[in-house]
Amino acid sequence: MPSYATNMRLKFPIVALILEVITIILFAVFAVYDDGKGHGHEPHSNETHHEKPLDLYPMFQDVHVMIFIGFGFLMTFLKRYGFSSVGINLLLAAFGLQWGLLMQGIWHLDDGKIKINIFKIINADFSTATVLISFGAVLGKTSPVQLLIMTILEISIFSINEHLVANVLEANDVGASMIIHAFGAYFGLAVARVLYRPGLKNGHENDGSVYHSDMFAMIGTVFLWMFWPSFNSAIAETGFVQLTAVINTYLSLAACVLSAYALSSLVEHKGKLDMVHIQNATLAGGVAVGTCADMNIQPFGAMLIGLVAGIISTLGFKFLTPILASSLGIQDTCGVHNLHGMPGILGGLAGIVAVALGKTTKGTPAMQAAALASSLGFALVGGLLTGFIMKLPIWGQPPDQNCYDDSIYWEVPAEEEEHEESLAHGDHSKNKAEA
Amino acid sequence: MPSYATNMRLKFPIVALILEVITIILFAVFAVYDDGKGHGHEPHSNETHHEKPLDLYPMFQDVHVMIFIGFGFLMTFLKRYGFSSVGINLLLAAFGLQWGLLMQGIWHLDDGKIKINIFKIINADFSTATVLISFGAVLGKTSPVQLLIMTILEISIFSINEHLVANVLEANDVGASMIIHAFGAYFGLAVARVLYRPGLKNGHENDGSVYHSDMFAMIGTVFLWMFWPSFNSAIAETGFVQLTAVINTYLSLAACVLSAYALSSLVEHKGKLDMVHIQNATLAGGVAVGTCADMNIQPFGAMLIGLVAGIISTLGFKFLTPILASSLGIQDTCGVHNLHGMPGILGGLAGIVAVALGKTTKGTPAMQAAALASSLGFALVGGLLTGFIMKLPIWGQPPDQNCYDDSIYWEVPAEEEEHEESLAHGDHSKNKAEA
Amino acid sequence: MPSYATNMRLKFPIVALILEVITIILFAVFAVYDDGKGHGHEPHSNETHHEKPLDLYPMFQDVHVMIFIGFGFLMTFLKRYGFSSVGINLLLAAFGLQWGLLMQGIWHLDDGKIKINIFKIINADFSTATVLISFGAVLGKTSPVQLLIMTILEISIFSINEHLVANVLEANDVGASMIIHAFGAYFGLAVARVLYRPGLKNGHENDGSVYHSDMFAMIGTVFLWMFWPSFNSAIAETGFVQLTAVINTYLSLAACVLSAYALSSLVEHKGKLDMVHIQNATLAGGVAVGTCADMNIQPFGAMLIGLVAGIISTLGFKFLTPILASSLGIQDTCGVHNLHGMPGILGGLAGIVAVALGKTTKGTPAMQAAALASSLGFALVGGLLTGFIMKLPIWGQPPDQNCYDDSIYWEVPAEEEEHEESLAHGDHSKNKAEA
Repeated sequence: MPSYATNMRLKFPIVALILEVITIILFAVFAVYDDGKGHGHEPHSNETHHEKPLDLYPMFQDVHVMIFIGFGFLMTFLKRYGFSSVGINLLLAAFGLQWGLLMQGIWHLDDGKIKINIFKIINADFSTATVLISFGAVLGKTSPVQLLIMTILEISIFSINEHLVANVLEANDVGASMIIHAFGAYFGLAVARVLYRPGLKNGHENDGSVYHSDMFAMIGTVFLWMFWPSFNSAIAETGFVQLTAVINTYLSLAACVLSAYALSSLVEHKGKLDMVHIQNATLAGGVAVGTCADMNIQPFGAMLIGLVAGIISTLGFKFLTPILASSLGIQDTCGVHNLHGMPGILGGLAGIVAVALGKTTKGTPAMQAAALASSLGFALVGGLLTGFIMKLPIWGQPPDQNCYDDSIYWEVPAEEEEHEESLAHGDHSKNKAEA
Repeated sequence: MPSYATNMRLKFPIVALILEVITIILFAVFAVYDDGKGHGHEPHSNETHHEKPLDLYPMFQDVHVMIFIGFGFLMTFLKRYGFSSVGINLLLAAFGLQWGLLMQGIWHLDDGKIKINIFKIINADFSTATVLISFGAVLGKTSPVQLLIMTILEISIFSINEHLVANVLEANDVGASMIIHAFGAYFGLAVARVLYRPGLKNGHENDGSVYHSDMFAMIGTVFLWMFWPSFNSAIAETGFVQLTAVINTYLSLAACVLSAYALSSLVEHKGKLDMVHIQNATLAGGVAVGTCADMNIQPFGAMLIGLVAGIISTLGFKFLTPILASSLGIQDTCGVHNLHGMPGILGGLAGIVAVALGKTTKGTPAMQAAALASSLGFALVGGLLTGFIMKLPIWGQPPDQNCYDDSIYWEVPAEEEEHEESLAHGDHSKNKAEA
Repeated sequence: MPSYATNMRLKFPIVALILEVITIILFAVFAVYDDGKGHGHEPHSNETHHEKPLDLYPMFQDVHVMIFIGFGFLMTFLKRYGFSSVGINLLLAAFGLQWGLLMQGIWHLDDGKIKINIFKIINADFSTATVLISFGAVLGKTSPVQLLIMTILEISIFSINEHLVANVLEANDVGASMIIHAFGAYFGLAVARVLYRPGLKNGHENDGSVYHSDMFAMIGTVFLWMFWPSFNSAIAETGFVQLTAVINTYLSLAACVLSAYALSSLVEHKGKLDMVHIQNATLAGGVAVGTCADMNIQPFGAMLIGLVAGIISTLGFKFLTPILASSLGIQDTCGVHNLHGMPGILGGLAGIVAVALGKTTKGTPAMQAAALASSLGFALVGGLLTGFIMKLPIWGQPPDQNCYDDSIYWEVPAEEEEHEESLAHGDHSKNKAEA
């Protein structure tokens, strides 16, 4: 039985500060600036060469926007959980990118040092994406302390799998359909399974949106959608290969929008569009084309992948998510299974086919399949283990009735309506809603 | 008399999927990646040469943000139409960029193929801008199916006019004052004229903003304002000419802000600022400097153009829009005539003068005038034809009373106020407002 | 006693238009495009050489986003002052960048001309940042006319101090901890002191946030946070020095997030997080690492600076701001002392230490100290003088009861609640709330 000692006054500050101090010490020991003189093997890449140290900087900033605005605002759709969505997203990503630099860097030491450059900070941002995807599965049901623990463990496990896939199996996964999207989704679903809450099986009054919270979420959706070509091409080989990754992603996403809208209307009451589908399934094309993004699959191939991804994702939201919750005890708040899980697997499968068809000179179908299996295996086992640690009754997990509610961990201002009333009654004091 | 069979359950999915499948087939036949080996004549440009395939990528992303965040959120000012504004904007632009790649590409085939590169996807994004401008004129009064039809027709007609202006007339229009802004505005106004609704001549309760919807719209405004230098310079000749286009646009927009604010205060009750003016007229400087952006008009010349544009645009919102609606039967929801129409013509006229004064080595005043006339002609005739097709009573057009209301095509969550009440009454079910 | 003639109908338009016309005349006399042939000494930089005119353009756009979205939305946290926050921010920055180009340019004339290039428009954007910081101190308590006057005076004074620091003292301040952040903060605090309002010493009913206004503010926070590496590195020497500035800022900000969250929880009731801290103190790491950003302080050094900045800033919000208001008569609406003032001084002090420790080959500790003293001196004296001019009872300053309220200078739409009622009563007229 979890403890509901949700007062974080000492617990959270101590955990956060200790983690940060340890991280700084590790940076003092291991991290230096890249001076352009080393020749480290980069993850995901065959020693991509950039003439100038900041050539990749604009793409880095696009990825940065996806991580902090994209993921952050995508999760603000919940009516009373916007502070946590964008705020805890910032916390986890800010810590995660530091941890990711260390965890990824130890596989690529250069004279015993991690030489930080733009390529490495892009990969550090990537490593946080896995955590933010998993965060979506447990959104509203976990404390900041639990989530910091998940961040450390998930990024550490991610870095092992990434190293295995990229450097041992030498598999293709430039846009990380397998090692980020499928990994992050199934890791999060495994955690959600362990943290299953029977008390929420009939839903929760705060587990839904209001009009303006859906609008905020669209900020996240659209920034993710726009910058996804950068995500899938940032670490591709420069030149025409990178151009290919941009074009494939651009087109896959465009086709995906049409199928997501079509399916949303097809499955919904009176043919109406559902914001959940629009906010999420329109992005599935970016996920699914990830593994093949830098391959010669031709524009129409990318569009077919996007078309299928939009269909699968929308159908997943409509039909599969309720079944996962009711039959398997997996309460997936944001539906990451539909946005990252299934489209990630689709991407991995498309990669196997594309390699088999000779759309790239790198890798073999067997190694692609092994990469997919490895990513799923590390995700499920890692997620279960992490879930059990997160379940320890000492991390301030919220009780069922306070789920999906910012006010348990945040000072929340009084509502405008109440404010109106307080004005009417001449009450000038600051109202703070208390849980 | 239009049909009000607004249930889109089959109509919309079938249209959307068929269009996408046809598009994918056309891509399979015509579209390949640019491999840098062709020498196609690019639209708008004298074979601009870029050393690396991704040199223009950051500017592409700026334009991308203008299309999807800028236009999308600019239209969210309506209190009950935010889902449609940003959501249908995404749908139309995602389809439009695919269609634009095809329509623009067929004028520039290379060995029978459209070779996709960053330059071409910038132009594809541009082609969608015409549709999004026209969307502003009919916002709230059209169904998604009607708008998809408008997208196909408008982009097809745009591509003919663009080819004529850029390659036959060889006119200057680097920032597309004429071929995008004036074209998109007058096309949309012609459609709006055909779709005139007498039932709305006394206004509509939902045709207005609330506080937070105006805030969302400012996200659109500011992103458009910031990235407009990229819009006007993206396809300019690289080097100092491109720098000129950036600087002229930056300064024109800055001067325009001052005149838009000044005029808004001057014409409004008690000297107050009006959000409609601030959201729109501050951008007119970007539109109006478009044609001349890459010319040697000097910084103060650009600022004068911006100053005048801000004045014209604000006065248009205040005095002309009501007259258009009452006297000409043109109900222009977003006032695109004031933001894109008049400033676009101003840009075209400024271009004629600038060419006559020798501010560029390209083109002649007569060809500039012909380009302006062509753009307006294609827009008006094309818009009227398109309007008549859109008026066919089979596309699910909304009845007057459901205009400007998301709930006719979207599942809309219950309002927060209502939610408060439902909480108070212990109602835990998900409320979905039905039209 | 201030005049409360807040009707701006003539006052504001005349001031705005006259300023713009004068500015255009000055541009006609002084400003030309950079043609790459001059060799002007650039501010902040030892003749940074860029191969292509647009090499810095992506970083410029990041800075542009920080100025217009970042600062603009950061200040939208007030429940009834969002239009002014983002709208007046746009006005001041649009005017300020023009004025900044002139004021900074006159120190670096080339054949009697200001040759505009990307480097110069980045610096012009920077100069507006000082004004926007000061705006934060007086937010809600000043009229647009007062703020335009502040813009002219502050940027003029800033340009003198900048010239002194960069070219006379030859001090390091690549990320402008001293010359922008500390300067802007203490300038604004000095203005706020002069404009002290005893009537607000017990607070004001509108001086607070609502849920969604805090969400809008997070848009500003996150964009500032993400793009701060561009702010601190945009004018650094290109190559590995610029990379160092990016990495130091990236890591300082990341560490700062952890300490800001930890301290917020530590000092608040029941360990809850406070949005004011999250919105602001998470950014203090970017401010504080500014002066040292391009120095060889090593990654862990940058992180230590960020860690300390997050602590200082959060403690300042909690404990110092109330004291400043009650004891010193400094009512600092946004707490700029905590975000820009103290972290700016911290940055200046860190710079002295870093130079003393030989982390850069440029400058001396004494000159760094002189630069800090100069920045504070110009800020305080300039701010006091500016405050007295702004206090003249002719600029339409709002009375106490209308502070923090858009409706005194803006047409504000009726609230949604009221709208609901008007619907219920069949009232179809447009409601405009009047002050």
